[in-house]
Amino acid sequence: MPPAPDIRIPLDVPSEEQERYRENYSAITHGTGRLMLFAGDQKIEHLNDDFFGEGIHPEDADPEHLFRIASRARIGVFATQLGMIARYGGDYRDVPYLVKLNSKTNLVGTSQRDPLSSELHLVRQVVDLRDRTGLSILGVGYTVYLGSEYEAMMLYQAAQIVNNAHQNGLITVLWMYPRGKAVKDERDPHLVAGAAGVAATLGSDFAKVNPPKAGKSVDAALLREAVAAAGRTGVVCAGGSHADMQEFLQQLHDQIHIGGTVGNATGRNIHQRSLDEAVRFCNAISAITLDDASVEEANRICTGGRC
Amino acid sequence: MPPAPDIRIPLDVPSEEQERYRENYSAITHGTGRLMLFAGDQKIEHLNDDFFGEGIHPEDADPEHLFRIASRARIGVFATQLGMIARYGGDYRDVPYLVKLNSKTNLVGTSQRDPLSSELHLVRQVVDLRDRTGLSILGVGYTVYLGSEYEAMMLYQAAQIVNNAHQNGLITVLWMYPRGKAVKDERDPHLVAGAAGVAATLGSDFAKVNPPKAGKSVDAALLREAVAAAGRTGVVCAGGSHADMQEFLQQLHDQIHIGGTVGNATGRNIHQRSLDEAVRFCNAISAITLDDASVEEANRICTGGRC
Amino acid sequence: MPPAPDIRIPLDVPSEEQERYRENYSAITHGTGRLMLFAGDQKIEHLNDDFFGEGIHPEDADPEHLFRIASRARIGVFATQLGMIARYGGDYRDVPYLVKLNSKTNLVGTSQRDPLSSELHLVRQVVDLRDRTGLSILGVGYTVYLGSEYEAMMLYQAAQIVNNAHQNGLITVLWMYPRGKAVKDERDPHLVAGAAGVAATLGSDFAKVNPPKAGKSVDAALLREAVAAAGRTGVVCAGGSHADMQEFLQQLHDQIHIGGTVGNATGRNIHQRSLDEAVRFCNAISAITLDDASVEEANRICTGGRC
Amino acid sequence: MPPAPDIRIPLDVPSEEQERYRENYSAITHGTGRLMLFAGDQKIEHLNDDFFGEGIHPEDADPEHLFRIASRARIGVFATQLGMIARYGGDYRDVPYLVKLNSKTNLVGTSQRDPLSSELHLVRQVVDLRDRTGLSILGVGYTVYLGSEYEAMMLYQAAQIVNNAHQNGLITVLWMYPRGKAVKDERDPHLVAGAAGVAATLGSDFAKVNPPKAGKSVDAALLREAVAAAGRTGVVCAGGSHADMQEFLQQLHDQIHIGGTVGNATGRNIHQRSLDEAVRFCNAISAITLDDASVEEANRICTGGRC
Amino acid sequence: MPPAPDIRIPLDVPSEEQERYRENYSAITHGTGRLMLFAGDQKIEHLNDDFFGEGIHPEDADPEHLFRIASRARIGVFATQLGMIARYGGDYRDVPYLVKLNSKTNLVGTSQRDPLSSELHLVRQVVDLRDRTGLSILGVGYTVYLGSEYEAMMLYQAAQIVNNAHQNGLITVLWMYPRGKAVKDERDPHLVAGAAGVAATLGSDFAKVNPPKAGKSVDAALLREAVAAAGRTGVVCAGGSHADMQEFLQQLHDQIHIGGTVGNATGRNIHQRSLDEAVRFCNAISAITLDDASVEEANRICTGGRC
Repeated sequence: MPPAPDIRIPLDVPSEEQERYRENYSAITHGTGRLMLFAGDQKIEHLNDDFFGEGIHPEDADPEHLFRIASRARIGVFATQLGMIARYGGDYRDVPYLVKLNSKTNLVGTSQRDPLSSELHLVRQVVDLRDRTGLSILGVGYTVYLGSEYEAMMLYQAAQIVNNAHQNGLITVLWMYPRGKAVKDERDPHLVAGAAGVAATLGSDFAKVNPPKAGKSVDAALLREAVAAAGRTGVVCAGGSHADMQEFLQQLHDQIHIGGTVGNATGRNIHQRSLDEAVRFCNAISAITLDDASVEEANRICTGGRC
Repeated sequence: MPPAPDIRIPLDVPSEEQERYRENYSAITHGTGRLMLFAGDQKIEHLNDDFFGEGIHPEDADPEHLFRIASRARIGVFATQLGMIARYGGDYRDVPYLVKLNSKTNLVGTSQRDPLSSELHLVRQVVDLRDRTGLSILGVGYTVYLGSEYEAMMLYQAAQIVNNAHQNGLITVLWMYPRGKAVKDERDPHLVAGAAGVAATLGSDFAKVNPPKAGKSVDAALLREAVAAAGRTGVVCAGGSHADMQEFLQQLHDQIHIGGTVGNATGRNIHQRSLDEAVRFCNAISAITLDDASVEEANRICTGGRC
Repeated sequence: MPPAPDIRIPLDVPSEEQERYRENYSAITHGTGRLMLFAGDQKIEHLNDDFFGEGIHPEDADPEHLFRIASRARIGVFATQLGMIARYGGDYRDVPYLVKLNSKTNLVGTSQRDPLSSELHLVRQVVDLRDRTGLSILGVGYTVYLGSEYEAMMLYQAAQIVNNAHQNGLITVLWMYPRGKAVKDERDPHLVAGAAGVAATLGSDFAKVNPPKAGKSVDAALLREAVAAAGRTGVVCAGGSHADMQEFLQQLHDQIHIGGTVGNATGRNIHQRSLDEAVRFCNAISAITLDDASVEEANRICTGGRC
Repeated sequence: MPPAPDIRIPLDVPSEEQERYRENYSAITHGTGRLMLFAGDQKIEHLNDDFFGEGIHPEDADPEHLFRIASRARIGVFATQLGMIARYGGDYRDVPYLVKLNSKTNLVGTSQRDPLSSELHLVRQVVDLRDRTGLSILGVGYTVYLGSEYEAMMLYQAAQIVNNAHQNGLITVLWMYPRGKAVKDERDPHLVAGAAGVAATLGSDFAKVNPPKAGKSVDAALLREAVAAAGRTGVVCAGGSHADMQEFLQQLHDQIHIGGTVGNATGRNIHQRSLDEAVRFCNAISAITLDDASVEEANRICTGGRC
Repeated sequence: MPPAPDIRIPLDVPSEEQERYRENYSAITHGTGRLMLFAGDQKIEHLNDDFFGEGIHPEDADPEHLFRIASRARIGVFATQLGMIARYGGDYRDVPYLVKLNSKTNLVGTSQRDPLSSELHLVRQVVDLRDRTGLSILGVGYTVYLGSEYEAMMLYQAAQIVNNAHQNGLITVLWMYPRGKAVKDERDPHLVAGAAGVAATLGSDFAKVNPPKAGKSVDAALLREAVAAAGRTGVVCAGGSHADMQEFLQQLHDQIHIGGTVGNATGRNIHQRSLDEAVRFCNAISAITLDDASVEEANRICTGGRC
């Protein structure tokens, strides 16, 4: 298990919200400073592609599948849109939530128009939902497409969201994705590091980046530049979509222990499985992330490599 | 008759509005969880094409025709713009209304410019009208064109409308239409399912979709993916424009009993008939939707297949 | 004289403003339900083209000419911009005013860019002027260019203006003009009917349309579709620019008695004459509109056909 | 000296601000109804082109030069941006100011993009500065580019500024410039007249126009159409940039006595001279504008034709 | 040491904030009227290019490096984004801060789209952070790209920020950069002077410009036009990126003593060094800026030319 870190409360958290921020940070990281984020915002981002089709377990066709996983597995936080939480949260009160505040579909490609993903809900509405329902809403998330022609609008919304979230004791995660006609290689390590650094300037607690690549090969060491650039903003990495399970766990272990990340944001690799497998896979991920388990130990949680 | 469902009140309905939401939901579904929505927003969407011309009964030329039908027939809710309700509602106080909050004309085609349909009225204005007049305004509706270059603005308005409507105890219906230069096949079952899923993430009570097609053939079973993707958001289907009456009722029956939808949104197929026929056709639709009547029983309501 | 109609107060007029609405409606229609609108908003719309040049009486060069006519002639309402009313209204306190809230110049043609005419003043500012000065400001007007790529913005502003105007007891007139690259024939009767129908959905009291044409010929009967489509929203017709006086009065008579309109909106045909002629021509128009006078009687008011 | 006119207070000036409006109007026109506006907003409009270079006196390189002139010369009002007044106004408390509320640079040409000049400061901020400092801020100004594709935004801002200014007793000057790809001849007398007329509909106290030309020749009589079109809005004329001094004074005299304008707005022709010359030239201009001096008398103020 | 100037408080600073403004101005200039601004906003502007790579000291990879330098070196103010200050400021309470309010990445080039850099945080949020934490936040900064097609938006935001900052006793620095398809030579002395003049009209306390060039050669005397044009707004110059240290100090000395600037804004040339070197280089810059040290004296602070 990683040593419990001192929690540094950013200065835009007012004194009356500092205790809540500390509790939220501690809860979302299980007291470890590490983040296991279960990503469930793809119903807008990828429409039904991630939920129905060949190789996807039929249980994933129903959005409640995500809540069932989030409820039974050991996770840091379950990220999804406010509408989903409003609809299912009453039956899944034990789940720790993070409200993903913007999303766009994948229909309009970058060659047609640079990406723009706008705020759907305001932090004020998240806080209102939290305060009225007593749900465990710990944070908010937002995606910034750096290099898009609409970058200015997303940088503004991201900066405002971090500030407003901290004003209310919420933890923030920014998905930092270079994308647009001007972006030649979204996975270039130097560019990914730049993106992570932007999250730091916006004051976010965590930055989610895609794993950098040198040419076609992924190497966890390539993350070090991003981790350094992000400073006190913790870097978490996307799980990707095609890794086999064991390879996935090895990559995650490398990202943390070689690359220096503080966790992961994983979606499809979890929820496209049956509930039981998904829960075990989640727990394996959490063992590596939160307990510093070895890949072998994590594999065992998946019952000998089969989640 | 379908069994009366438990009403699940979404968490963005505050406690002081939960009773109203329950009553509205019960009223709009006649206590069945099923929705018969009589759509009368085409005076903007299709200008006068749906109201005057060959094959359209002359009574349809007058907008009051819609109110007459809504008043005499058995419907769940009559959807139209706020201006129409303000103008005719005083004489049709018994009608259950849903205010369609956005609309656009069909003049600018997708090849010229991607569709943008913006909010005309604010939820606050709907609530004000409801509270001052005592009209039975049960809900609000909004159309989202997924895949339009203006998608971001419509997703934002839709999310805000659902949230604001629920804050005031109103039921929400989102018309989810993939459309724009980036959309190759608006009726693709997988895409329709994605659209239904987006409505779920926005927290809407109902999503209206167009019936999916595999190639040129409509098959109610193709709706199952959408119904699953929408989760607790009820899917209702568009009635289309060219079906003959009996075929229409059979399709509706199939949509519900094979596809798993919870109702329909029907406009032109109703109001382009004389008042008497329209009322009978409405009632036939309602019999299938609300009473689980067979197609034959529904046909009888239309007096032997002639509405 | 047409029979005094019952005044139907739309439901978006709150109870405390209903008496004012009734009085305004009665005043603007002289108790007849018919509207004689003297249009004086062309100083933006047509710059100085309508006020100076060949065939235009020199008195029209001075904007006060419009106020002199409005003051001496029998009209329903004089429509002009708020700035003009603020500047001249103090000397013309007897004139009934309607504030035209948007206007654009004719410099940028449709082939260069689709038309956008944005609100200049807010209803709140109109109400403030009315309440502070005691001027007889009875209503507001707004132009919607249907089929413009900027249609969404104008539909939104129009809907808001009607709602806000009714909240303050003001009568509304919407100028409904199909225009833009997507519009092939602005005078197509079916399209004009569609435009009139949109005004109804926006809740306006009156819709001004251009006289429809079948090919090149104007026929008042072509208006019937629009009048039907508008329902309880009264249709008034543009006077056009080139008609000779007698022909103009005949057309107006036909529009009302054949087409079913409830009045006219006339600008250039009035103010491009000398004050005396303009007043007589106004009175002739009003005789037809408000008194059901025959064309011959109206002509006599113009002194035997010479206004 | 022109006869002191009655001051007509526009109706959008509330009663509690009418005395201030009257005083401001009287001060800005020296009780004559005529306006001598010393224009000093070119540091944005023309960057440093008007202040440094061949033929420009070195004293003009320092922005304080403008304040020195405004302080020593006889002017109606000195127009410049709020930031300049905030920086120098404390040392030049005797100067009557008009805050120019929008400005753009000349870098982007019309062939690249139609002109857009947006509000920099709000009337509320001008009023706050006036009320807190006791500076003699008498009015506000704004430029409208008619015929620009962004005309709608500027018409809106102009209308709002006039209304808000009058609400606070301030005098308004609108610079009315036809400009954009759609504008073939910015100096066409008929178009200039149209522009002046638009200022009247916006309710402005003064409209500044460029001197109209028929072909290449400037003729003061060409202004008469504009003066008529503007009605009660006083027309003032731009001084131009290349006139020699005597010719300039003759043109000004003609503009007033032949064209019917009520003053001038002069910038470069004043401030590109040494302080002494500039002061004398200002005074010569004021003698013509405010005292109905002859060109010869005005020349004498310039010491025999040499300012 | 330059003589302590009288501090001229601009008039948009209200009386209750004048003492704070005076203290901030005195602190930021060490009582000299000169500004040594340590620029640390490049993590958005240049992504990770300035922080990691060949020729950059490895310590610069960590954003805390900037705070360590700002804390140990003698500077006027450290400019960075609010998020960075919120994250590190608690450990670096002795640093004087200036919040850079806008930033954009360098991904989208001018040939693709003209630059737009939008406000990230509001002055209100800066003031809130200052007042709640007691941090020494002395000012705010903003970049304006003159000549961009989005110039209007940036001029508006800049004007508002200066006004709002002064309302709260904060010092302002505007980065004035001509850039866009319309700008042929960003370093043209006359254009740079124009840009400096615009900052004056916006009321800013300081304007940062890039060193002008005549052809390819930089000459401090070329700054004189800009310094004159800026009037009471102090001009500071960018340090550039490729100068060797001694040359850099000589240029700075020339900019002040030949060009007439009042300081510098230096980023990369400082923070790309090790902490010790960076601190010594900062101190050398400050010696020239704040103490009127000679280049030789400044070099000695760098230990014989080696920082």
